Amino acid sequence: MPVNLSAPVAQDLHPVAGLRIGVAEAGVRKAGRKDLTVLLLDEGAAVAGVFTQNRFCAAPVQVCREHLAAGRGVRALVVNTGNANAGTGAEGLARARATCAALAEQLGVEATQVLPFSTGVIMEQLPVERITAALPAALADAQPTHWARAAEGIMTTDTVPKAASRQLQIGGRPVRITGIAKGAGMIRPNMATMLGFIATDACIAPQLLQPLVRELADASFNRITIDGDTSTNDCFMLVATQRAGHAPIESLDSEAGRQLKAALQEVAQQLAQAIVRDGEGATKFITVRVEGGRDAEECRRVAYAIAHSPLVKTAFYASDPNLGRILAAVGYAGIDDLDQGGIDLYLDDVHVAVQGGRHPDYREEDGQRVMQQSEITVRVLLGRGNAADTVWTCDLSLDYVRINADYRS
Amino acid sequence: MPVNLSAPVAQDLHPVAGLRIGVAEAGVRKAGRKDLTVLLLDEGAAVAGVFTQNRFCAAPVQVCREHLAAGRGVRALVVNTGNANAGTGAEGLARARATCAALAEQLGVEATQVLPFSTGVIMEQLPVERITAALPAALADAQPTHWARAAEGIMTTDTVPKAASRQLQIGGRPVRITGIAKGAGMIRPNMATMLGFIATDACIAPQLLQPLVRELADASFNRITIDGDTSTNDCFMLVATQRAGHAPIESLDSEAGRQLKAALQEVAQQLAQAIVRDGEGATKFITVRVEGGRDAEECRRVAYAIAHSPLVKTAFYASDPNLGRILAAVGYAGIDDLDQGGIDLYLDDVHVAVQGGRHPDYREEDGQRVMQQSEITVRVLLGRGNAADTVWTCDLSLDYVRINADYRS
Repeated sequence: MPVNLSAPVAQDLHPVAGLRIGVAEAGVRKAGRKDLTVLLLDEGAAVAGVFTQNRFCAAPVQVCREHLAAGRGVRALVVNTGNANAGTGAEGLARARATCAALAEQLGVEATQVLPFSTGVIMEQLPVERITAALPAALADAQPTHWARAAEGIMTTDTVPKAASRQLQIGGRPVRITGIAKGAGMIRPNMATMLGFIATDACIAPQLLQPLVRELADASFNRITIDGDTSTNDCFMLVATQRAGHAPIESLDSEAGRQLKAALQEVAQQLAQAIVRDGEGATKFITVRVEGGRDAEECRRVAYAIAHSPLVKTAFYASDPNLGRILAAVGYAGIDDLDQGGIDLYLDDVHVAVQGGRHPDYREEDGQRVMQQSEITVRVLLGRGNAADTVWTCDLSLDYVRINADYRS
Repeated sequence: MPVNLSAPVAQDLHPVAGLRIGVAEAGVRKAGRKDLTVLLLDEGAAVAGVFTQNRFCAAPVQVCREHLAAGRGVRALVVNTGNANAGTGAEGLARARATCAALAEQLGVEATQVLPFSTGVIMEQLPVERITAALPAALADAQPTHWARAAEGIMTTDTVPKAASRQLQIGGRPVRITGIAKGAGMIRPNMATMLGFIATDACIAPQLLQPLVRELADASFNRITIDGDTSTNDCFMLVATQRAGHAPIESLDSEAGRQLKAALQEVAQQLAQAIVRDGEGATKFITVRVEGGRDAEECRRVAYAIAHSPLVKTAFYASDPNLGRILAAVGYAGIDDLDQGGIDLYLDDVHVAVQGGRHPDYREEDGQRVMQQSEITVRVLLGRGNAADTVWTCDLSLDYVRINADYRS
């Protein structure tokens, strides 16, 4: 059961001019499942992305990097679920390239103009012939209005498709932003999430896209964690089709640049949080906010120590205000000169600990009340400086173990 | 159900001359439970210890450090379960000191000659009056033969008491070593485990004890992890009562020094592994061995990434050879220049991956066979150098979540 998250309504997802989406059933792992999605771009779109920092990165991630570096422009993205094409060696690379070549041939473009994405089981070879056999069906399905189908097409253990959309005005012209993402386990993105795609028809200088996608990732997908397991396949792609008809944005600091960035940020954060809300087995959505650090990095380190602690996460699952576990996690986060006597802890508005000890006014029933909510903010004050950072996570439930003990069976 | 671990037989635990043990029911948290243990040392014993590196270290840890630094010699150790006296601020320190003072008064020694140890719930004040009320009963119970009672007296969520014992000959005289330890969650010791005590009647120069205890910890308690949560209360203490009657050991590199260290190491590793075997919810005992690293530190980092991955741990629980999850953990362990093409993976004798991809001869049923065992060795070859290191851990089961979601209720 995802936490306060429902499936997107197709009509709420704005089509993005210059982009069509097709979905098909390739039977990569299981029959009767929409497991192949293509995003087709008209000529002239700018594309940038950030990828997993996992050294064991998957073959499609390596091919994506190569194809983006080739600089021939991107005309299609092809996504399969059911198989991650990771831990597959040289043969895996060949199969990712073969997927691109097959789609390129059908579109009459170059293979390096196609970007491949895979998600699913690791260390099994990609059944590339099933994918190429299903490509014609995916192409025949392609429509600008198929965002909701794409959100469904990239799901694995997700229980709800994830999409977000915004419309804004730039220079008197409507600009649309629509994005999709998937989770739901092996989620501790480092540069990007499992799979996230955001497209806009905004007109923006292509060289601005790479810094922009990195900044967006850092404030959204790079701030979530479910189980601390950084995937081999994380990708977050930003597409600007340049079709909205306003004067091109030449600087992210211009008024139009700031407007666009703010709207993209909203979409990216909504998608990132949707992944946590639908985290494997999640029953609670937890915001971990750490303030008063010397720099943002140490705030982040403390926030992730809390967000990754199995003891903290099981306490949230149990709605048990066993809040000393949070203090213990703060203590082992790796800040060598941390003074426990300077630490405050809040659970929503409840002041739990002061100067490293239980607050004299703290009553167990107040902690209990907050712990029973489905959305909880943990706030830690380090008392060392003025930096702050925030991470979003979920609890660790019996269902997380059940799902991951059963995933392949 | 602990993994291949049974309760110690009292007769197998050698008494250590110069040391008596008493256990009592103080009702710290629950009535009718042996929750108070005292270890009484004759004059002249040497004591050294290592403590948690958690910055949120508990009050008794702080008091232990103070009392050891006072250098007046140690005459007693007092251990309570049910309450960790951590996250308790200045009041917690006062209560830890009051416990020492009460026991010191009854023994006719100084308060700084008593070391306090606590384990249990965090962020609640220690009911010191219940402890002092039960001290006379613990003292009346004191016998050299009560090691098995002590192993039981320091248990919390442990399901089996943990003890180990050895006897060796030094200079023609019998020397005894006996130790006890407890787990069973919040286990990722950093310098020492939750609580571990080893005593020997060996005669050894007191200044050798501190380097020795650190070395012992590094090869035993500092190589285990259950959930990655470093406790606020970890302590590992080594006592040498100097009563065995052989010529004093003046160097750890002497023959007698090496003999003693080897025997102590066996006891320390047996206790450390016992904690993992009885880890919360454990159904498998996993040895993670990483070889071919540039240095031991990077081997350790990779080993812990594997040992902490919830996805790897749930796969072990499910006996599912979903071994790509191990490669993914290797990839995110933080070795920036790791080349996935140089990595080999073995599961016991089964060669699973070669050069970062599935081994051509690897068959799922071979992986399946090993995964179904209760003891499994994961072996990763990094192919970068000659260093190696080993970490011991357990799987992540439904019972881990159940135990930690229910702990306080």
